[in-house]
Amino acid sequence: MSHNTFGHLFRVTTWGESHGPALGCIVDGCPPGLALDAAFVQSFLDKRRPGTSRFVTQRKEPDQVKVLSGVFEDDRTDGPVTTGTPISLMIENVDQRSKDYSEIRDRYRPGHADYTYDQKYGVRDYRGGGRSSARETAARVAAGAVARRVLGDEIVIRGAVVQIGPHMIDPENWDWDETANNPFWCPDADMAKVWETFLDETRKSGSSAGAIVEVQASGVPAGWGAPVYGKLDSELAGAMMSINAAKGVEIGAGFAAAGFSGEENADEMRMGNDGVRFLSNNNGGVAGGLSTGQDVVVRVAIKPTSSILTETRSVTRDGEEVDVRTKGRHDPCVGIRAVPVAEAMLACVLADAKLRHRGQIGS
Amino acid sequence: MSHNTFGHLFRVTTWGESHGPALGCIVDGCPPGLALDAAFVQSFLDKRRPGTSRFVTQRKEPDQVKVLSGVFEDDRTDGPVTTGTPISLMIENVDQRSKDYSEIRDRYRPGHADYTYDQKYGVRDYRGGGRSSARETAARVAAGAVARRVLGDEIVIRGAVVQIGPHMIDPENWDWDETANNPFWCPDADMAKVWETFLDETRKSGSSAGAIVEVQASGVPAGWGAPVYGKLDSELAGAMMSINAAKGVEIGAGFAAAGFSGEENADEMRMGNDGVRFLSNNNGGVAGGLSTGQDVVVRVAIKPTSSILTETRSVTRDGEEVDVRTKGRHDPCVGIRAVPVAEAMLACVLADAKLRHRGQIGS
Amino acid sequence: MSHNTFGHLFRVTTWGESHGPALGCIVDGCPPGLALDAAFVQSFLDKRRPGTSRFVTQRKEPDQVKVLSGVFEDDRTDGPVTTGTPISLMIENVDQRSKDYSEIRDRYRPGHADYTYDQKYGVRDYRGGGRSSARETAARVAAGAVARRVLGDEIVIRGAVVQIGPHMIDPENWDWDETANNPFWCPDADMAKVWETFLDETRKSGSSAGAIVEVQASGVPAGWGAPVYGKLDSELAGAMMSINAAKGVEIGAGFAAAGFSGEENADEMRMGNDGVRFLSNNNGGVAGGLSTGQDVVVRVAIKPTSSILTETRSVTRDGEEVDVRTKGRHDPCVGIRAVPVAEAMLACVLADAKLRHRGQIGS
Amino acid sequence: MSHNTFGHLFRVTTWGESHGPALGCIVDGCPPGLALDAAFVQSFLDKRRPGTSRFVTQRKEPDQVKVLSGVFEDDRTDGPVTTGTPISLMIENVDQRSKDYSEIRDRYRPGHADYTYDQKYGVRDYRGGGRSSARETAARVAAGAVARRVLGDEIVIRGAVVQIGPHMIDPENWDWDETANNPFWCPDADMAKVWETFLDETRKSGSSAGAIVEVQASGVPAGWGAPVYGKLDSELAGAMMSINAAKGVEIGAGFAAAGFSGEENADEMRMGNDGVRFLSNNNGGVAGGLSTGQDVVVRVAIKPTSSILTETRSVTRDGEEVDVRTKGRHDPCVGIRAVPVAEAMLACVLADAKLRHRGQIGS
Repeated sequence: MSHNTFGHLFRVTTWGESHGPALGCIVDGCPPGLALDAAFVQSFLDKRRPGTSRFVTQRKEPDQVKVLSGVFEDDRTDGPVTTGTPISLMIENVDQRSKDYSEIRDRYRPGHADYTYDQKYGVRDYRGGGRSSARETAARVAAGAVARRVLGDEIVIRGAVVQIGPHMIDPENWDWDETANNPFWCPDADMAKVWETFLDETRKSGSSAGAIVEVQASGVPAGWGAPVYGKLDSELAGAMMSINAAKGVEIGAGFAAAGFSGEENADEMRMGNDGVRFLSNNNGGVAGGLSTGQDVVVRVAIKPTSSILTETRSVTRDGEEVDVRTKGRHDPCVGIRAVPVAEAMLACVLADAKLRHRGQIGS
Repeated sequence: MSHNTFGHLFRVTTWGESHGPALGCIVDGCPPGLALDAAFVQSFLDKRRPGTSRFVTQRKEPDQVKVLSGVFEDDRTDGPVTTGTPISLMIENVDQRSKDYSEIRDRYRPGHADYTYDQKYGVRDYRGGGRSSARETAARVAAGAVARRVLGDEIVIRGAVVQIGPHMIDPENWDWDETANNPFWCPDADMAKVWETFLDETRKSGSSAGAIVEVQASGVPAGWGAPVYGKLDSELAGAMMSINAAKGVEIGAGFAAAGFSGEENADEMRMGNDGVRFLSNNNGGVAGGLSTGQDVVVRVAIKPTSSILTETRSVTRDGEEVDVRTKGRHDPCVGIRAVPVAEAMLACVLADAKLRHRGQIGS
Repeated sequence: MSHNTFGHLFRVTTWGESHGPALGCIVDGCPPGLALDAAFVQSFLDKRRPGTSRFVTQRKEPDQVKVLSGVFEDDRTDGPVTTGTPISLMIENVDQRSKDYSEIRDRYRPGHADYTYDQKYGVRDYRGGGRSSARETAARVAAGAVARRVLGDEIVIRGAVVQIGPHMIDPENWDWDETANNPFWCPDADMAKVWETFLDETRKSGSSAGAIVEVQASGVPAGWGAPVYGKLDSELAGAMMSINAAKGVEIGAGFAAAGFSGEENADEMRMGNDGVRFLSNNNGGVAGGLSTGQDVVVRVAIKPTSSILTETRSVTRDGEEVDVRTKGRHDPCVGIRAVPVAEAMLACVLADAKLRHRGQIGS
Repeated sequence: MSHNTFGHLFRVTTWGESHGPALGCIVDGCPPGLALDAAFVQSFLDKRRPGTSRFVTQRKEPDQVKVLSGVFEDDRTDGPVTTGTPISLMIENVDQRSKDYSEIRDRYRPGHADYTYDQKYGVRDYRGGGRSSARETAARVAAGAVARRVLGDEIVIRGAVVQIGPHMIDPENWDWDETANNPFWCPDADMAKVWETFLDETRKSGSSAGAIVEVQASGVPAGWGAPVYGKLDSELAGAMMSINAAKGVEIGAGFAAAGFSGEENADEMRMGNDGVRFLSNNNGGVAGGLSTGQDVVVRVAIKPTSSILTETRSVTRDGEEVDVRTKGRHDPCVGIRAVPVAEAMLACVLADAKLRHRGQIGS
């Protein structure tokens, strides 16, 4: 992870500002011969697209992706396939209402990157947060689609929201199919109703709410990852924490493991039909930095959207004290749209781990 | 972070197994002219050394560090200084009781890396966990000492244990001086007594306990970090999650922020004597991936030591079901010795951020 | 240098195929506040553009660059300036005559990457050489323009052709101004005439010629570079050898130094008005991998264009023996257009060295 | 290539100064299960060892290597094998006569890194050149031994000296076996005699001579390398130019190709018994940055040893003009001992290319 690039063999570089002409990514190191067209990438972008419900930003961005390089359709191939060269994916910005932001040009919105970008760079594109905008995550989702092709169909990556504000789902109610039935990716039908009420209130009051996202990958074989600094969980933690508004990452039992005894935490093993079978998954599918063959389970804490209508105390670029209200079209709970983003990051980290694993080990 | 190296300009590569002849690290990219001798490095290693109390492993390792390269003492200098070339630090292993481990040669200890290393590599040094042993963290602590020299005295890095098992400190009681008065790095004198009783029971029963470590850096100027994938918090998350037994990382309010409203979470700003003053630090000193100038605050969840005397169900290398007890000399709560390690990782990440910042920005 | 990215702090990633919709680059890690607009980048692209004389390819590509991100024009700034975020530069392909290439779809052109790409990837975009086309170098030239901004006006980077086919310039005649007076970047007016005749014959016969390009940077301060594997000359060698058709790189006296005695080769030193003055520059401005403060001098050997009209023996994808003639619009001497490319690579390597130097050293 | 590390998946980090206690390397990313013991590594170090003839430095260094980590000998294995963890190799310095260098503490030896190190770092270990000493190359040779294990026996790497001073071998006389019969790695028996006379004179006069080294790898399959900045020839150029005293690198016909016509340069293809057969190898086994399956052929120009007894004009650290004679025990032609070093760099680059290739491609 270096500036705007992450990954080692499967490498993703993203670019673009919220209110520039476009944004995009370069995916480098992708294996050749994988089916890839714009429609496949688009299917994931559509999950993250703004304006799909009243609980997300009302900015109207079709987020149509173009594939500018790295694929080729030949007579020998059945549709475009990757060629092993860099894949350039671009999404044009359409609905930039830059005027909405003119008044915060010189005012630092608390919780945003306004102040820190100015401190670092001395100049910043303040329109929509510029580079620090969550629009950047569209590029991650596009890259994640490519990563899924690298992983193949055996590895299934899914995500859900497990907490919004103080309201946590009941894990007993977990039903993956349910995530498609509500606008929150909520796997607990009862909780989805609670969230609807809660977020409507939040939205109407101009406030915002935090959330916890959980993503899982099943089908990952044992042994992926590279100790001791390229550990799979270390890579996942870095990748997830790079998502806008992320403030915490945990694997498996995570922070709860701190309260466990060694006996409670032990993922005991027995022989199953296909080899080793674990009796629990407190480790979240990673032990010693390497995948165990169990589901990889990662949770990410997303802070409430910093853009709120309530006045908050702040300062200007010139050191004057002011009160700031952030108008514009914001997500009342940015954690919702973080689901496809966290899925994408999980896919990218695993794709990179797969390639590095077979680089060192040979298969 | 790539295999056994981390950092970009300030780069640390570690090597060595628990029961090999030695372990160590190479610190590359260090600025020249910084005072550095073995005694300074040793002072940090002594904080992590085994055998200092009954609550840590009783393995007797003096952990004496040798500085093999990268420093030079000339007439022009007052003691050895760094030369800008790679600094090689080596610690010889002394007290390897390899026989203790012979019986687990073919048995996979639940929660350990035994199974995953075998799955990945097909061969493993099972003695004391080999490369996956927490002994590797001695090399991190040595590197962290160099990082502190890079950061200078204005940046103060400190750590504490804030939870052991289910027992959490009271933040109101926080007193940094107190961390030196008990064997737990506990900043809450009352809680230290609770932990003493709790860990004595844990230890006597052959069990183990998890913990949460908190590390802080004060004096970090605003603007360090490099969005969007080299974010300071992203680098910190990756670095901390690479510590043995870490299962979660959070910055500032962390997972608690998921339950906050936007108003509760906002770190409002006012002008202070030295520029901007924040009215809270939910962001943990990082916004938009860049340091804010506030204290950088990171917490790491450490799972209970996997080595316990209680029998746990497992399998052998050959697929036989067995029950495993892990004898040997283990930490009942490995989170305690994780404090100097997490401090070292924080120091290394910040030293790297400092060098990268001035690389791009110029000062 | 990794796949399609090079540089450490000043990092360039390029993408695009010869006959795809566009090509471009992302320049990451650029310092903020540098004036940068499309016109400045364009001025360098125009030096490399096809169709400027009868001695280069007749493909008609305007090579108009768009700046898609990483710059911002604010009231506070006088024209667009870099913001420190990734700079995305894109050039659309206009004049793709893909049909010209249909017949070499299954035939391997000797000297081209056709065979090796097929061997590696199993699929390739054969149109115009796909990713292996020299069109990719347009992206390097665009990145080089940004690098020049990083270096500032004190560092002057210039290039020339010093040999075409067997005809070498006379160094005694070297006149930088002359390079603008002929279509070869030839600094020797007499030799330019010889080349004109020689290349006209080459061109008419459907053949091609090799060349040697020399690039120089003046104004580089002493101390840039990072021994021992990030040596300035090592970085330069890697960068130059990555240029299409490059087969050799030398610094200063280069291969001639192999024939020198120690006395002949020594760059003796005396004191000048501004500090140390060297009496010769056999080292080409680099000693011990670090810049000496003298001109950095690099020469690159460029093989003759592999696309020739003469039939050459080859094979098909299916293992049939065939004779191949390469129609299309090719450079009779690709070394000519390599001048702005080599200049760009020199600029990029130096910009990266500058940032890394001040990262480690502090100024 | 970054500071003191090179390689991507097969990564080598070296450390140590000429007159420090030891030097060494860490080889990270090595595949597991490869036979590796100190004796195997030693066999390559012995080829580079000082004092083996009167034509190399008379410093007495046994250069005994210790393997400190990364290998394990288990009952299941027949001798130590690599475990996939970092391999730490260390060579202790024995014969440091530091007093020899006291007089050049403040004097800059022309052609050495003395001046540039001081300019960069402000402090330097002047004893024997410190980090810039060619002793560092012992660590490369040790790493190269590991690389050979990664490549296996099918890939044969060999080197020779093809020119010393102005005296070039006759390629017609090339006999690999001959390289073992003379102290120059000379493949031309007649030329070996010429060199003996020439170097005796050079040595007695206190002068030194340059050289050209050629290294070859046979058995490399087609397709290794990673366009466009990780090209195999680009990696080789960077690696070779990082060798002490290297001033030029060429692949295949190299600089001679600049004088060729397209017809002369074309490596035509026909079908052979095992697939494609090339009728020449001007490309030196690399086309489009990927291996062709032919022998990889690289030549490196090595400048004459800068340490000579003749007085040369120089300056002191304090800006006084002085004349410098370099006593000490130096190689009259450092190019000779560069052969095993260039072989090692070729092995390391290929090992890395092999791992990266199968990472992306899968086999």
